[in-house]
Amino acid sequence: MTYGRDENGDRTESRGGGGLATALRGLVEQHDVTWIANAMTDEDRVVAAERQHRTVLVAQNERTYDLFYNVMANPTLWFVQHMLWDLAYAPDFDHGAWRAYADVNAKMAHAVIAQLDGAPGAAVFFQDYHLYLAPAIARRERPDAVMSHFVHVPWPETDAWFVLPEEARCDVFAGLLANDVVGFHTERWRRNFLRGCADVLGARVDGDVVSYGGRRTLVTAHPIGIDRAEFDALAQDDEVLAREREIVASRPELLVVRVDRTDPSKNIVRGFRAFGLMLERHPDLRGRVRMLALLDPSRQDVPEYSDYVAAVEREARALGEAVDLRIGDDFKRSVAAYRQFDVLFVNAVFDGLNLVSKEAPYANTRDGMVVLSENAGSFEELRDEGVLRVNPFDVSQQADALHAALTMDADERRRRLEAIRAHVRAHDVAAWGEAQLADLDRVPSLR
Amino acid sequence: MTYGRDENGDRTESRGGGGLATALRGLVEQHDVTWIANAMTDEDRVVAAERQHRTVLVAQNERTYDLFYNVMANPTLWFVQHMLWDLAYAPDFDHGAWRAYADVNAKMAHAVIAQLDGAPGAAVFFQDYHLYLAPAIARRERPDAVMSHFVHVPWPETDAWFVLPEEARCDVFAGLLANDVVGFHTERWRRNFLRGCADVLGARVDGDVVSYGGRRTLVTAHPIGIDRAEFDALAQDDEVLAREREIVASRPELLVVRVDRTDPSKNIVRGFRAFGLMLERHPDLRGRVRMLALLDPSRQDVPEYSDYVAAVEREARALGEAVDLRIGDDFKRSVAAYRQFDVLFVNAVFDGLNLVSKEAPYANTRDGMVVLSENAGSFEELRDEGVLRVNPFDVSQQADALHAALTMDADERRRRLEAIRAHVRAHDVAAWGEAQLADLDRVPSLR
Repeated sequence: MTYGRDENGDRTESRGGGGLATALRGLVEQHDVTWIANAMTDEDRVVAAERQHRTVLVAQNERTYDLFYNVMANPTLWFVQHMLWDLAYAPDFDHGAWRAYADVNAKMAHAVIAQLDGAPGAAVFFQDYHLYLAPAIARRERPDAVMSHFVHVPWPETDAWFVLPEEARCDVFAGLLANDVVGFHTERWRRNFLRGCADVLGARVDGDVVSYGGRRTLVTAHPIGIDRAEFDALAQDDEVLAREREIVASRPELLVVRVDRTDPSKNIVRGFRAFGLMLERHPDLRGRVRMLALLDPSRQDVPEYSDYVAAVEREARALGEAVDLRIGDDFKRSVAAYRQFDVLFVNAVFDGLNLVSKEAPYANTRDGMVVLSENAGSFEELRDEGVLRVNPFDVSQQADALHAALTMDADERRRRLEAIRAHVRAHDVAAWGEAQLADLDRVPSLR
Repeated sequence: MTYGRDENGDRTESRGGGGLATALRGLVEQHDVTWIANAMTDEDRVVAAERQHRTVLVAQNERTYDLFYNVMANPTLWFVQHMLWDLAYAPDFDHGAWRAYADVNAKMAHAVIAQLDGAPGAAVFFQDYHLYLAPAIARRERPDAVMSHFVHVPWPETDAWFVLPEEARCDVFAGLLANDVVGFHTERWRRNFLRGCADVLGARVDGDVVSYGGRRTLVTAHPIGIDRAEFDALAQDDEVLAREREIVASRPELLVVRVDRTDPSKNIVRGFRAFGLMLERHPDLRGRVRMLALLDPSRQDVPEYSDYVAAVEREARALGEAVDLRIGDDFKRSVAAYRQFDVLFVNAVFDGLNLVSKEAPYANTRDGMVVLSENAGSFEELRDEGVLRVNPFDVSQQADALHAALTMDADERRRRLEAIRAHVRAHDVAAWGEAQLADLDRVPSLR
């Protein structure tokens, strides 16, 4: 959640790109939780000063925060973890940004320590790639605290981590291993992390437990799920239904939908190429099908991201009216598109999980098909549940998969969508939260 | 070895970029070997028709060969194996080039089979990334043949192989596992291959043996070494010494030397940046030190390579007279530079081995220091032998390492260079060849 001011001077709240913030907010509402976050905007800092109910916002120095967020977290760590660096040319490791990353982590760790003073038995849940160093700092001060860390992005293999010099990559692994539990969305990312612990730190790995620095850490894989109550409510939401009527009024017979942040990891450029190639191969579909691309502009302060938006726009223009490209943050329009797709297209280069591939079929009303990248985390769960598998680098195969999805017969479509839905229903965000709490029950046995 | 015609119409022979061709030629001369190679130029095809002594050149269709060599081998496989793809934008997997790769491999396999008809007990040694599919084709026809494959490039981890769609990446692994022995230069690449066999094919891995498709394959690591006799002779060679006098006549007090193909994996652009940063930090060295960069233009038919040369030239120009950039193929000048360096700079992004880091210290006459990338294969052998370690992405660290090397005291320089030389002497190309022959002794126990 980010706070700002609108033109009337009233406080605004923005949901934030991606489904993660929502999913976590759902959990926070259901449990006795204090949320500790960095203050990102001026208004955030005002809110921090006001210390709203159960949220602790940590004010950071602006220049330090900029290096932390816009250089080290994005793009450096994000690009390492999604294997996006064009390594012949970039990056040049930025030691100043690394120090800023360490500074912000230290402040967050001290906020955690302060909270533990008020609630010594509380469990600490660190989230994601912004906070790899905080657990080790907190652990030094609170050796007995119960700490868990969930990594929402892919965990690449050992050699990819060599983009960080030795000390930095060791600090990342050692920071995570200061937790009692480290969680990932997939077995694939878990496997890579376990191997990296051995390769980078020389840690001992026994099954799902890593021994390092005299401590033991449980490493688990729990794919996140959707908040069913939220999506059940959205299916009745007036604004969603109004947006859906707009789509229905203008849509052709067949609609391919993608909903993404404008992130290079999402593979939007190749996605347009694949759609264009499909139309070349099947001219009978021209005029009968459109691709609706709803893209949330993301991290536009980072040059790699603004360059990518330009590339996305160029590629879309080349396809003319066959593509309807909307760049903007409009969650309810996305949900309306979830309801209306005939094919959902998720071709991510790499993706930690990809909640869209679960949210959209859950919300769909047209027996829509899901074309899914084998490098999306959700592929591990959904591969046998009716999705059409694509390799993100194989544009030709993606074109063929789009065509197969668009022309699949009705019974098969229904069967496949129902299989995906059954899985999504059975593995929702509540189940994900419960699995993490269950992991904590194993902590005493690790000590 | 590539054949051409000079301006007089006489046949020319070119050594080819990199030290690998020489190292292998040395082995071929010392053993009873028939060399099977693709005919790359028109003159190669003439030579193939003439069927010179112990060399079999396989003629290939020109268009097919172009796709095989200039699209699939370079850049696709080379870039996968050196982790050089800018994955948000490239590549789009090229199915036509993959079929061409398979075609060339099939022709090479049939040439191998034809040779085995004349010498049924002969061992077959496949070399490198051009021939991943040939072993499986030869194996189907000759189930009892003894086959060994040496991979001279890095072997990346599993996820990097996902740039190839599933069928292609399975064919790569299955092709290699059709051999009795697969060799790499380092334990690191061997480890990555063994993990990939399990991840990609679901093969069983027991220590250094992989079981797949009812067969067993030994996977070994033997770093290649230099041909000492060749370098002992070059130390007396008139042309080398003449080149050396030219360098001596124009050199400043201190000389940093790099000798590379103009390959994005060699990290030449960041190398210039590091040298420039070192001069900024230590203006006292301005005018006292120059970087001599001897670069063999490589694969200029491939856009990624010609773009890289342009980037290299831009970066060198920015440094003015502090850099002496020579782009050309002149092996004897390189050996002269080996003799004259005060610092040898090898900062490769990734490198299978990097023979320069062994040849140059062996030939050096000035107690020169070696600054070596931790991602060069030779780092695994030389890390404890006196080299200065650098991370290839950390330009700041490289600048500091260059300065440390340039200012190290004389005793320490001598001690370090002697440690490297002792290793290079003890692990020469003959030892590498013998280790591979010794592996063959284990083949009967695998069957």
